Amino acid sequence: MPRALIKDLPSKLGQVVTIKGWLNTLRDMSKFGFAIIRDRSGLAQTVLNAEQLTQLHGLQVETVVAATGLIVEKKSKDPLVKEVEMQVETLEILSPVVDVVPVEIGKPDIDVNLDTLLDNRVITLRHPKQRAIFRVQAALVHGYRAFMEAAGYTEIFFPVLAGAASEGGAEFFKVDYYGREATLTQSAQLYKQITMGVYEGVYGLSYSFRAEKFATSRHLTEFNQLEFEVCFVDNIDELMDIEEAAIRAMIATVKQDCAVELKLLETVLPPLGEKFPRIKLAEALIAYRDEAGVDETGEPDLSPAAERWLSKEWASKHHNCGFVFVTDWTPAKRPFYAKVDPADPNNTLTFDVIGWGSEITSGGMRINRYDEQLARIVEKGLDPAAFEDYLTMHKYGIPPEGGFAIGLQRLTQNILGLANVKEATIFPRDVQRLRP
Amino acid sequence: MPRALIKDLPSKLGQVVTIKGWLNTLRDMSKFGFAIIRDRSGLAQTVLNAEQLTQLHGLQVETVVAATGLIVEKKSKDPLVKEVEMQVETLEILSPVVDVVPVEIGKPDIDVNLDTLLDNRVITLRHPKQRAIFRVQAALVHGYRAFMEAAGYTEIFFPVLAGAASEGGAEFFKVDYYGREATLTQSAQLYKQITMGVYEGVYGLSYSFRAEKFATSRHLTEFNQLEFEVCFVDNIDELMDIEEAAIRAMIATVKQDCAVELKLLETVLPPLGEKFPRIKLAEALIAYRDEAGVDETGEPDLSPAAERWLSKEWASKHHNCGFVFVTDWTPAKRPFYAKVDPADPNNTLTFDVIGWGSEITSGGMRINRYDEQLARIVEKGLDPAAFEDYLTMHKYGIPPEGGFAIGLQRLTQNILGLANVKEATIFPRDVQRLRP
Repeated sequence: MPRALIKDLPSKLGQVVTIKGWLNTLRDMSKFGFAIIRDRSGLAQTVLNAEQLTQLHGLQVETVVAATGLIVEKKSKDPLVKEVEMQVETLEILSPVVDVVPVEIGKPDIDVNLDTLLDNRVITLRHPKQRAIFRVQAALVHGYRAFMEAAGYTEIFFPVLAGAASEGGAEFFKVDYYGREATLTQSAQLYKQITMGVYEGVYGLSYSFRAEKFATSRHLTEFNQLEFEVCFVDNIDELMDIEEAAIRAMIATVKQDCAVELKLLETVLPPLGEKFPRIKLAEALIAYRDEAGVDETGEPDLSPAAERWLSKEWASKHHNCGFVFVTDWTPAKRPFYAKVDPADPNNTLTFDVIGWGSEITSGGMRINRYDEQLARIVEKGLDPAAFEDYLTMHKYGIPPEGGFAIGLQRLTQNILGLANVKEATIFPRDVQRLRP
Repeated sequence: MPRALIKDLPSKLGQVVTIKGWLNTLRDMSKFGFAIIRDRSGLAQTVLNAEQLTQLHGLQVETVVAATGLIVEKKSKDPLVKEVEMQVETLEILSPVVDVVPVEIGKPDIDVNLDTLLDNRVITLRHPKQRAIFRVQAALVHGYRAFMEAAGYTEIFFPVLAGAASEGGAEFFKVDYYGREATLTQSAQLYKQITMGVYEGVYGLSYSFRAEKFATSRHLTEFNQLEFEVCFVDNIDELMDIEEAAIRAMIATVKQDCAVELKLLETVLPPLGEKFPRIKLAEALIAYRDEAGVDETGEPDLSPAAERWLSKEWASKHHNCGFVFVTDWTPAKRPFYAKVDPADPNNTLTFDVIGWGSEITSGGMRINRYDEQLARIVEKGLDPAAFEDYLTMHKYGIPPEGGFAIGLQRLTQNILGLANVKEATIFPRDVQRLRP
């Protein structure tokens, strides 16, 4: 008999059907029992007889079963609520669970600490709320891609293995590559810039690796970025317009595709206002001092607390928006490829997006000329020999260009209000964790 | 003045517009000259005066320019062909090229060897035929995702860093991970199987890394696979039906989205017949002996020559199809997670797809029970301790399931008839190559 999905059972009233799924909970009343069976579409109550209960003897929850039986109306306390259940005729054990499952997932919430949650991913991902997180994440990516494709940009599949340190920083993972040293990419920047000479506008999902020495609620050693780069643009306003439109498209896709998940997670999506505010770093710090009473003016960066306040309080209150563009960063705080403002050597043509709690994007105009890039590398105190690929690229005509990258796990974390970015990562990797 | 794309110039006849792009070729007639300018949409002839020629003095092809001028009808030898050109009024140098470009890309074909092609990716990717390859590749992926999404499967973003060797083979890249040893994933198999307990059907684009000791026209050290896994299936026929439908959707998407690219590349797409043939390995080898006169019967595998013959000659001739499913492989030739045929210990419930020249897919039913997996690992002479994550997973109820993975670069290579898989990889990595 072909399998019916549990969500479709109300339409099968009076029919004999087969469902397949996991034993979610079992109540053994000795002469009969109630088994709740779970599949990807929902939960179903089934009534088992004594013989069927014997089949489950010695087996634990999460055992995979196929149950065939008549769909009948379930006695409900509320006569207005029509529910169905299955009177099981035959029960088949498809995959037995003999060990006690280490984490209880039959309740509305998983009540364990983060390490236990992540150590037992095989089990904990099955909880409907965990499952919902990564459905929302996929919808964010789908919204992003659809937006970029409709705008005529070309999708690129970026490499992971690289020869030299791609941004000159220290925190690279090193790979033994046939006795030589390779690294894992920290950024897709080089590849995006090369394709400016090819497609003029590109997007894609990259993998970034950072050998961060510390573990925080915002850091992973491996994460994904939604990349974008476009040429023949003149200023960061064009880039910010594109990113704002992309984020709106992503959130619209989540609303459309994930209504069930958002309800289950009790998510309040960030307000989007009419236009995302754009504020200079120095002005943001002044607002933080004047309105929140925390004086960090003069700092070259936003603290985590300032990021939270700026997006969840300031932008929310003044602009009914959970996203803020922060512009006018000093060259010292930006990478070697960031374009310095021709009108002000202490400023760059770059921006961050603070999105509903923390930074989710860095972006800006890039250096596109050989002489300018070489001078900038030297000014930064870096060794030009380590940037041969960048410098070679700039010799052969890269147009004025810019772009951005959105941290996928960070954005998922913030939109869903998760305490730790690892909760927004299906198989997270950090200083301690490489499994499963 | 906003930029016009070159493909739109015929509709701008009599107007003054600005185009931006690369100096593709220059003919200097001293008092005037012709510059061909290239953007992502095409090539345009522009007429320069002596002063504008002076602006280009000392600059090489690939210099990035903005040209503003009147669009006029071009004198054509064929009065039926209406073409336009630009009489340039102002020329601006956006990014100068002062070095001689190492590879000539102004001709219909790039005439260099593979190493030169790949060493100079910054330049060679700009050639229209190179650019076309990766547009086709993106369309293949888009067709795959659209098919999987429409069928209700969930997209997964797989990790790259892993703790232990994920398939027990020797050819792993090792990463220095805070003084410990990590590896790069050879396969997404573990992660796909874990999600069987979660979403029941998943897909995604994975990164696979193989430290192969040899360099062939079919091997890369880093490549992408289009992954699929689904549970509550009973046999490989269901899996092959899904893969066949996915491949048909992918090729249909390429036809629809890449007509220009296919014409440029002079691609003859593989025939798809009414149904992809399904043949046992032993029978394929008998056909190879009887029809091609090469006796490899008794071999446990198909040679590259046999794969080519089977897909491009046998299937093409007998089934008007460029794809063949080959089934009935011995356990020795399949990984430890492959399900052995319950009716025959010398057979597995697995298949390969030979696609228009070579193997593009391995797939099949997987072991889903703890006891069966443990026994299989021991039978293979492997150490169960090295497979702790797999064995843990199987303790907690994985349903009967199977799946497949399609090599993205291999498929692109075969569909476009490229001699080497590196030509189907935008930034290929092999034993020698890690750059750019």
